[in-house]
Amino acid sequence: MIKGWKDKDWGESVPVDASLDDVSESDFDGLLLPGGQMNPDILRMDKRVIALVSAFDAAKKPIAAICHAPWLLAEADVLQGRTVTGWPSIRTDLTNAGAEVVDQEVALDGNLITSRKPDDIPAFNQALLAALDA
Amino acid sequence: MIKGWKDKDWGESVPVDASLDDVSESDFDGLLLPGGQMNPDILRMDKRVIALVSAFDAAKKPIAAICHAPWLLAEADVLQGRTVTGWPSIRTDLTNAGAEVVDQEVALDGNLITSRKPDDIPAFNQALLAALDA
Repeated sequence: MIKGWKDKDWGESVPVDASLDDVSESDFDGLLLPGGQMNPDILRMDKRVIALVSAFDAAKKPIAAICHAPWLLAEADVLQGRTVTGWPSIRTDLTNAGAEVVDQEVALDGNLITSRKPDDIPAFNQALLAALDA
Repeated sequence: MIKGWKDKDWGESVPVDASLDDVSESDFDGLLLPGGQMNPDILRMDKRVIALVSAFDAAKKPIAAICHAPWLLAEADVLQGRTVTGWPSIRTDLTNAGAEVVDQEVALDGNLITSRKPDDIPAFNQALLAALDA
């Protein structure tokens, strides 16, 4: 179980299906990276996470990242020349990582699907489902 | 009063001396940017904060930034060719903003004083005091 974050305070605990040590890109059709200010900030320091992001990108499998999660794409160094969006606070970091940053509810660039904020979730989910269906 | 963040949960409320609308670089001898995962992430979206950071740097007045706070230096675009340090999660962002990133308790480069983490606070404070004394 891990503690979740709900809006502005701690929320419910949620069960974890598998540890990072037990998963690899070949087990999955796509990767969804949720946002939050703290979650990607912690995940980007874990080499297993960054290796997983790189592996999904190398395999051209869908990677969907919303809010602060595109930081993980910057950390994995997969943004050179890619068009993405994200939460306003991280856009300078995305630009500096070589991305073209746009301000729209979903940015699609090959296997990369990125969105800005919780309001974008319906369009974000739709884009990921379409990519998994393709 | 604003709500503070203590370790891993909300802490005490603290009084605010002045609003960003009421301060300018010329009123102060130096700028201390505290860390935390959320604080600099929010501050970097405020144009008044970034203008203040730029003004202190242009005036070559000491700017001391610890943990996640060097993100504000990246946002203000003052890192090209400067040597800095910071919390591990932000180092790729600092490098991508043009900085040379080092891993030491205090990095000094002209008016920029940066540190990595809470354990570095004594050395960080000492370096800021020395710079204000100079």
